[in-house]
Amino acid sequence: MAQNGNQDRVMDDYDHHHHDHDHASGDEYDEHEHKLKGKKEEEPSVERVFKHLLVPSWRNQLTVRAFVVSFALSILFCFIVMKLNLTTGIIPSLNVSAGLLGFFFVKTWTKFLERSGWLKQPFTRQENTVIQTCVVASSGIAYSGGFGSYLFAMSEHVAKQSSDTSDFKDPKLGWIIAFLFVVSFLGLFSVVPLRKIMVIKFKLTYPSGTATAHLINSFHTPQGAKLAKKQVKVLGKFFGLSFFWGFFQWFYTASDGCGFQAFPSLGLKAFGNKFYFDFAAIYVGVGMICPYIINISVLLGGILSWGVMWPLIENQEGHWYDKGLGDGSLHGIQGYRVFIAIAMILGDGLYNFVKVLSHTLLGLYYQIKEKQRENVLPVADQDSPSSQLTYDDQRRQQFFLKDQIPPWFAVGGYVAIAAISTATLPHLFPHLKWYYILVIYLVAPALAFCNAYGCGLTDWSLVSTYGKLAIFTIGAWAGASHGGVLASLAACGVMMNIVSTASDLMQDFKTGYLTLSSPRSMFVSQILGTAMGCVISPCVFWIFYKAFPDLGTHKSEYPAPNAIVFRNMAILGVQGFGSLPKNCLMLCYIFFGAAVVINLIKDLMGKRGRFIPLPMAMAIPFYTGPYFAIDMCVGSLILYVWEKVDKAKADAFGPAVASGLICGDGIWTLPASVLALVGVKPPICMRFFSRATNQRVDTFLGN
Amino acid sequence: MAQNGNQDRVMDDYDHHHHDHDHASGDEYDEHEHKLKGKKEEEPSVERVFKHLLVPSWRNQLTVRAFVVSFALSILFCFIVMKLNLTTGIIPSLNVSAGLLGFFFVKTWTKFLERSGWLKQPFTRQENTVIQTCVVASSGIAYSGGFGSYLFAMSEHVAKQSSDTSDFKDPKLGWIIAFLFVVSFLGLFSVVPLRKIMVIKFKLTYPSGTATAHLINSFHTPQGAKLAKKQVKVLGKFFGLSFFWGFFQWFYTASDGCGFQAFPSLGLKAFGNKFYFDFAAIYVGVGMICPYIINISVLLGGILSWGVMWPLIENQEGHWYDKGLGDGSLHGIQGYRVFIAIAMILGDGLYNFVKVLSHTLLGLYYQIKEKQRENVLPVADQDSPSSQLTYDDQRRQQFFLKDQIPPWFAVGGYVAIAAISTATLPHLFPHLKWYYILVIYLVAPALAFCNAYGCGLTDWSLVSTYGKLAIFTIGAWAGASHGGVLASLAACGVMMNIVSTASDLMQDFKTGYLTLSSPRSMFVSQILGTAMGCVISPCVFWIFYKAFPDLGTHKSEYPAPNAIVFRNMAILGVQGFGSLPKNCLMLCYIFFGAAVVINLIKDLMGKRGRFIPLPMAMAIPFYTGPYFAIDMCVGSLILYVWEKVDKAKADAFGPAVASGLICGDGIWTLPASVLALVGVKPPICMRFFSRATNQRVDTFLGN
Repeated sequence: MAQNGNQDRVMDDYDHHHHDHDHASGDEYDEHEHKLKGKKEEEPSVERVFKHLLVPSWRNQLTVRAFVVSFALSILFCFIVMKLNLTTGIIPSLNVSAGLLGFFFVKTWTKFLERSGWLKQPFTRQENTVIQTCVVASSGIAYSGGFGSYLFAMSEHVAKQSSDTSDFKDPKLGWIIAFLFVVSFLGLFSVVPLRKIMVIKFKLTYPSGTATAHLINSFHTPQGAKLAKKQVKVLGKFFGLSFFWGFFQWFYTASDGCGFQAFPSLGLKAFGNKFYFDFAAIYVGVGMICPYIINISVLLGGILSWGVMWPLIENQEGHWYDKGLGDGSLHGIQGYRVFIAIAMILGDGLYNFVKVLSHTLLGLYYQIKEKQRENVLPVADQDSPSSQLTYDDQRRQQFFLKDQIPPWFAVGGYVAIAAISTATLPHLFPHLKWYYILVIYLVAPALAFCNAYGCGLTDWSLVSTYGKLAIFTIGAWAGASHGGVLASLAACGVMMNIVSTASDLMQDFKTGYLTLSSPRSMFVSQILGTAMGCVISPCVFWIFYKAFPDLGTHKSEYPAPNAIVFRNMAILGVQGFGSLPKNCLMLCYIFFGAAVVINLIKDLMGKRGRFIPLPMAMAIPFYTGPYFAIDMCVGSLILYVWEKVDKAKADAFGPAVASGLICGDGIWTLPASVLALVGVKPPICMRFFSRATNQRVDTFLGN
Repeated sequence: MAQNGNQDRVMDDYDHHHHDHDHASGDEYDEHEHKLKGKKEEEPSVERVFKHLLVPSWRNQLTVRAFVVSFALSILFCFIVMKLNLTTGIIPSLNVSAGLLGFFFVKTWTKFLERSGWLKQPFTRQENTVIQTCVVASSGIAYSGGFGSYLFAMSEHVAKQSSDTSDFKDPKLGWIIAFLFVVSFLGLFSVVPLRKIMVIKFKLTYPSGTATAHLINSFHTPQGAKLAKKQVKVLGKFFGLSFFWGFFQWFYTASDGCGFQAFPSLGLKAFGNKFYFDFAAIYVGVGMICPYIINISVLLGGILSWGVMWPLIENQEGHWYDKGLGDGSLHGIQGYRVFIAIAMILGDGLYNFVKVLSHTLLGLYYQIKEKQRENVLPVADQDSPSSQLTYDDQRRQQFFLKDQIPPWFAVGGYVAIAAISTATLPHLFPHLKWYYILVIYLVAPALAFCNAYGCGLTDWSLVSTYGKLAIFTIGAWAGASHGGVLASLAACGVMMNIVSTASDLMQDFKTGYLTLSSPRSMFVSQILGTAMGCVISPCVFWIFYKAFPDLGTHKSEYPAPNAIVFRNMAILGVQGFGSLPKNCLMLCYIFFGAAVVINLIKDLMGKRGRFIPLPMAMAIPFYTGPYFAIDMCVGSLILYVWEKVDKAKADAFGPAVASGLICGDGIWTLPASVLALVGVKPPICMRFFSRATNQRVDTFLGN
């Protein structure tokens, strides 16, 4: 969900970390020069370290081995992202893992070839960037493909759990792949012509892209390679631990309510309100990667909702909503959970949309004004390497500008794909009229630019907010009688894919700029990665869908919480607020307002605002329950203690440990779903009873 | 049980470790001198490091604070030993923990006083030795008091589980304390006059005593203190972890068959044969302290018995023994388990008894011969410090000989106590006639000497073997009709206490010799420690006895396996082999023979014999099941991997980690039994069902 944007991009910690490395790897001369130049450049010269190395041509950056490794890693990350999609919807940044693992695989491969004397081409950082770009593009589809949100929200299964079951479209491998191919490439073409403006002229930061570039650069220096080797070792160790922990847990989950997922680690009463530590390595890892404030926000949201609000509202059963509706009915307690969460997410999303948009416009205004001033004054054109630039910038601009992608190609590509998809999509979704699509494609480039620019400024990609915008506008336009729910969900998908790939591509251009990779190779890698994602993600989703029949059911192993949220948003957009239970709308207004106010306070407080929780993170456990928040806080706690004990080590190896935990548990879902598919069920059930129930069970079993 | 002797004393690993420290702390001059003198002395001069320090008088070595700390630690170790007694009967060496914790407490205390300016007397290594001696003496009573063996074997509860229920004597606080006071001090007086012969003339090694002395010496050098501080920190960390792990586990054990003790970590089938890892920190710690070969022996024994033999014998149900007797009947499968274990323990015990006795006699013979030769040749008397001796030996002998304990005091004490106890014991045990006791007391000094000498040579204390000797001789003498079972168990207690305290005292004299502690202070400390043990141990046992009503029941949390074994040995001694099930006697002969043969092979193979398993260790899981063997092997594995990764660190901190795990889990039993006493029961039951059973339970509970 939208929160993804935030976490996916906030990587200041890594940034710091890699800065340190660069300091270590910069030789004395560079350090000195750096000091003389003062604060003008942000880091010591990296490119001098690499200047003796030949930069391969863009064609040679795109090696076969890079795409083989990318393909393997794409499958790995697809599983991870899919698992996260379908459990809580919180997806951390996997760039670091992708970079590390890519480095590890190709390095092993080249070392092996080197020994056997068959190595033709050494492993370069450009190649590493190509892998990272391809993997991020591919696993990005697993998120923006909406398997945990809009796409799965179309299914009958989710429809049955919402108040409206009028129209649904069950997932089928064929139409999903077709849909993704038709909508996923538009974003790339829409922002390609803007790369020079964004990266060189505007000098946008793109913290994640910059951090990844630092990581890759540091890997390819001698010290960096040594550290990377150690990091890979740590990652591998925790990968193994996490994988076998997942494997071990599996044996004890004979049915629902069994196993470590049902471990009442904080007591049975707390467990009843979903407060428990569920021993999931993946969330401990996610907690270690996410900034502290996100983990604390999620926990606070969980305490507020499941600890205070829901028990209070449940006391009003019979007054506020009808008795005996059960835990899953949207007309009962579940309605409060879902709609209050939606209200808070929308409040936060809207606030940030307005904020980032105004930033964008303001930024653009100043950029243009400056440009005009520059044009008046006789200053050298910044397009060509000038003597004012640092050595690093000179070299980077030189390589970034060497390989061009002609604007006619981008525009032509965009128009062609838009035409194809306008013609195709109405066949997939009869209610999604061709003129809806045309309107979306006319507006999309502007929004794609907005998102790419905003992401470069704030590191905050608002993919799902743009998606929600599409849900409400198209939903209102189509109306309930014309299958508006499905149409608006499909429109959401179109929008999300464009906006998401656009900002991803721009991030990658920044990474490419900083690693002297050619924009052409970045573009090709992104296209190939997107194509991979369009095939891999649906297949991975298909495995989950077939292996776990209760996918998307509340309280199951894979509740896919965002699917319910998205469907209800679509219904809300189409039908209005009529079906909400008593007082729910009022509470929604309050939480919508609260989300805006909290954000406002956060921004007004400036630097101290970082202690204010994020409303969007708080809203997630409203529906899912706070158990994963506890996992994540355990991860935070581990990292915090580690940092207190040995800051340097925690900084160097924390991300590797976290990545190992995430990847191990994530990839365990592959064998787990294969086992489920072939009908192998776990043999044992680990259960928890109160003492009284246990006595009854004992009597029943005749012990 | 007897195995204790072996583990308690085999401490070569620590010995190594402390050697290393001494090397580190020896200054260059000593190292040089050491090289010049060649192999004459085994270690560099330790005493030169300490020579500027004043050695306090023997009265000043016995400080109040030392005994306060000893008292506290005695309670801690009593709980640990009692828990081990009542669960598996394997008790590792706690000397290192006692030394470490004693150092930690007094050091904290003196540091606190030093800061407030009230410190009158600095903390010396002599005082540390006093604490260690006192704690070991006190916790020794928890073992030799027989709460897990002969004493508890007298109870009605255990009698009911054996074939003979004719006579029993339930534990009562009063008579236990009286019994212990009457029999525990004899051992001390019986060997006191021999200390000069054993320590100075025979120069016996006493590996455990030497290791402890090295530890204490190293603590009081500057580097040693630094390392000790780190070790204490590590110990404290794992103490806390282990304690809270025990606490956490408690919540899930609402009744028998609940919780982590019932975790089928290797599958339900393996669990049915008691193969599972039960997450007990205490046994992981014990496994880390025990030599690898013991852990492997225990595991092998477990696989042989529960993995192969018992399933095979159970297939013969109806042929070899009557059907439907259940798991606990000694006429059924349980009989095979108990008596085959006894046969193997007796075989091993007898072999080692003969071996150590012949060693002892042979050693004595050579010592006397040498002495005669020395008396003929005009060589300076070794009793006084001579110029031939190293500086260390000179100083040590000087202090060891300074404070004398007159022989009349020892002999008088022995006779007085023997008289009192001969008069008292028949009142406690009417069937234990005064002339049995008199005979025991006439033979005891010789056996006490044998054990002390054998222990000094081989580090192998055969306490429970001497106890078994008493069971069979007194049992046969008394006969079944005269309450022979109770009489022989009581006689076993008398014998074990004498023999155990005798070898403990001599170990402590060796420690005292190496730390320049006065023999008088050692003796007083041992007496005070024994007195403490005579009160603390019964009280701790009483808590267990009252808190856990199913103490001594097969398959309960505290099965007290050795109690059943001891009782059945007594019955066997009194009644003969009549009541054994079919083929059991033959199997017993085979295993008795096998134990002797394995030992013989072990000894004949010389150094490579260390890879041959120990029959006594193998016999333990025959009755209890191999689950704790798996825990211990996990401990071994952890240590093994640690040693592979970082040998120096593993050597320095392995014992601290192990001690922490043991102490934390051990002391958790204190609050656990208090909770049980006041009737607070754990709220949750963690259970494990097969998938089929789980479905039945689900249907029953109406989910």
